[in-house]
Amino acid sequence: MNILFKNIRAIVPNGDSDEVKEVNICVSGEDIVAVGDVPAGFKADREVDGTRKLAIPGLINCHTHSYMSFMRNAADDLSFMDWLFGKVDPIEQKMTDEDAYWGACLAIIEMVKSGTTCFNDMHMNKMQTTKAVKESGIRAVIGRGIVGSMEGDKPDEGGLRRINDILEEREAFKDCDRMTFCLAPHAPYTVDAPFMRYISDVAKKEGMNIHVHLSESVSEIEGVKEKHGCSPIKLAADNGLFDVPCIAAHCVQVDEADIDIMKEHGVSVVSNPASNMKLGNGFAPIPAMLKKGVNVCLGTDGAASNNRLNLFHEMSLMALIHKGTERDPQVVSAAQVFRMATINGAKALGLSDKIGSLEAGKKADIAILDLNSPSLIPDNNLIAALSYSVSGSEVTDVMVNGEFILEDRKMKFLDEEKVYSKVREITKRIVV
Amino acid sequence: MNILFKNIRAIVPNGDSDEVKEVNICVSGEDIVAVGDVPAGFKADREVDGTRKLAIPGLINCHTHSYMSFMRNAADDLSFMDWLFGKVDPIEQKMTDEDAYWGACLAIIEMVKSGTTCFNDMHMNKMQTTKAVKESGIRAVIGRGIVGSMEGDKPDEGGLRRINDILEEREAFKDCDRMTFCLAPHAPYTVDAPFMRYISDVAKKEGMNIHVHLSESVSEIEGVKEKHGCSPIKLAADNGLFDVPCIAAHCVQVDEADIDIMKEHGVSVVSNPASNMKLGNGFAPIPAMLKKGVNVCLGTDGAASNNRLNLFHEMSLMALIHKGTERDPQVVSAAQVFRMATINGAKALGLSDKIGSLEAGKKADIAILDLNSPSLIPDNNLIAALSYSVSGSEVTDVMVNGEFILEDRKMKFLDEEKVYSKVREITKRIVV
Repeated sequence: MNILFKNIRAIVPNGDSDEVKEVNICVSGEDIVAVGDVPAGFKADREVDGTRKLAIPGLINCHTHSYMSFMRNAADDLSFMDWLFGKVDPIEQKMTDEDAYWGACLAIIEMVKSGTTCFNDMHMNKMQTTKAVKESGIRAVIGRGIVGSMEGDKPDEGGLRRINDILEEREAFKDCDRMTFCLAPHAPYTVDAPFMRYISDVAKKEGMNIHVHLSESVSEIEGVKEKHGCSPIKLAADNGLFDVPCIAAHCVQVDEADIDIMKEHGVSVVSNPASNMKLGNGFAPIPAMLKKGVNVCLGTDGAASNNRLNLFHEMSLMALIHKGTERDPQVVSAAQVFRMATINGAKALGLSDKIGSLEAGKKADIAILDLNSPSLIPDNNLIAALSYSVSGSEVTDVMVNGEFILEDRKMKFLDEEKVYSKVREITKRIVV
Repeated sequence: MNILFKNIRAIVPNGDSDEVKEVNICVSGEDIVAVGDVPAGFKADREVDGTRKLAIPGLINCHTHSYMSFMRNAADDLSFMDWLFGKVDPIEQKMTDEDAYWGACLAIIEMVKSGTTCFNDMHMNKMQTTKAVKESGIRAVIGRGIVGSMEGDKPDEGGLRRINDILEEREAFKDCDRMTFCLAPHAPYTVDAPFMRYISDVAKKEGMNIHVHLSESVSEIEGVKEKHGCSPIKLAADNGLFDVPCIAAHCVQVDEADIDIMKEHGVSVVSNPASNMKLGNGFAPIPAMLKKGVNVCLGTDGAASNNRLNLFHEMSLMALIHKGTERDPQVVSAAQVFRMATINGAKALGLSDKIGSLEAGKKADIAILDLNSPSLIPDNNLIAALSYSVSGSEVTDVMVNGEFILEDRKMKFLDEEKVYSKVREITKRIVV
């Protein structure tokens, strides 16, 4: 199927930055085949009139736990460890596999409706997020959260099972090119150092990337320092987690030496500003990371610690909070934030040849915004507006892999009413 | 006209806090006449089915400059004084009265669509914001920004003219009970100390409140300290600004002594977190103010420094940023933030007998949210959701003074398309 977005304003790359341009976007099958003029011979089966519309590359949410969406509002105003072990863990004990599926469906609805076309998930339940991704049409990178420790030269049973889970999922969905799989050791306080090394070896052997929580809370730093005499970043580096492409979530409590290590190993940092504030963990030193050239991207974290999965909200926080902490209105520009939410995320996930910008040769992952929205008027600086003005509801249509998965604000392949009603039931059973 | 919101969930006061309750809300003419059971003899001309809806008191935006909405995205990433004198001032020089009217219309559309029913405006153009308020159906407190200095025992011509402007507006709109008028000395760096005293005397004589910018940027503090040897808060107190009910915008750069002065004089602080971060001014010490019992409410500031007029966004910032600065997830709860955006704002504006909560005897200023929105599912803690999850687009209907001014997301009395097109023209002429 050939689709033409005709005379539409779009954010397109121009060297190392981006610009707003009126273009034609030609989509053939899964791919963008032209951005600019319509190539000779291109025949559209469907034309979308671009008047008063803005096309952007679909946003990339680089850290979340989609199943958690039914834990929205379940655990507010608690310290990080109380939140995790006192509230979230007990709910997770009661959660069934099917609950995780419906949670992932709700998460996908919220993400797609606010312009996200790809997310990096750390889950707990085999074949559940994957099922929701397959059905909904969204793109995702899937990791099964791994916790455990080594017993002699072998991981404990739970650790081994979790590694096998993700290898089985990868096999089961090998024909769905919207899904990629990675290894996701949970954190330095739930995975011991020798097990990190083991996971790194599996990653190398299987050609998989790593997704891990690092340096999130002060208590994590203190615990690692006490046990290992170094920072979580150093511990991860020393135990092989950075020997393969690695995406490190949070990195709030890091110093210059940590940033140097991450830069040296090409680690991508996914910042989750709402979650970091909400749990009282603070502000990641993003300006220092940018100065050193670390690849920074954006995530929402799970709904239990945010409590939303709207990447535009994270963009606004990213563009604002560091101007506050540094008392400098010029740090972290809207243009930089736009890249964090798009191409930097694609790079972090090893998908920058496929997604992250509107360019011929890439997959057609596109979000369309209605410019007839008060937050987008006037429209003289749309890149600034995406960080400072847009709330997400301006998104009307979303395409992934050349297929519309949101049309006129309605999900095409998920039954919204059914998902909402299932999640309400789950919450009544295991949360409230 | 009698309107019944039947079996609707609503946020209603319960002592010093709020709770979610399923109620009937009976509106007669301009007033709420019952919240709970339907009184015997109440006959509804119109019934609104409350299924899967949430009623909240309309939000109160306690500090904005509505005319500025066409300056959205006009001046990003600049220091406060460069922003004000290098960018905003030159645009204002070119702005006509009619431009200010269309700017105010756009601002009102954006505010109403995100649940705001009352705003506190500091404007520059006589009979323009007032005209937009009158036509749109929203409620407002109107102040004409006053700058100037004393020449002997009389204000300079400009200062006097600005005072007369607001007195004339008050007279012209005395029959519109949705409008209140106040005196709005701009700031300590644009109004000299004797002129503050003069304005305070006018306020006392005319029975008007005061709305002023105070302690916003570091350079303001330094300037006042150099010239007067004290803080802007002390200067304002010493020159009579706090002798009448006063609402002080920003108060970012304040110390314990300043907070004590404000508490002692019953000054209300309107915090504008997005604007304060965006201009690099930092974070107001809200937790310290709350501890001392200062009345804190919320504002968006103008679109030139935000760049949006969505109070839900400020609520989310208020609930998050102080948890980050204090590294404490328990400061500034969602319940406190809800009060800041509603009843605290009403108190600050001297309108708490009329608005700020859903109670019999108050004016019917109500926003209705669609609970069938992903951000509001699950719905087990709706007060938390209002700060942490809602983006504003969940608002479907807004009533002010017993009359719907937004129905099914459409403005009833303003022509949205016309406003958007006028603002685009203005921007092309005087901004870009």
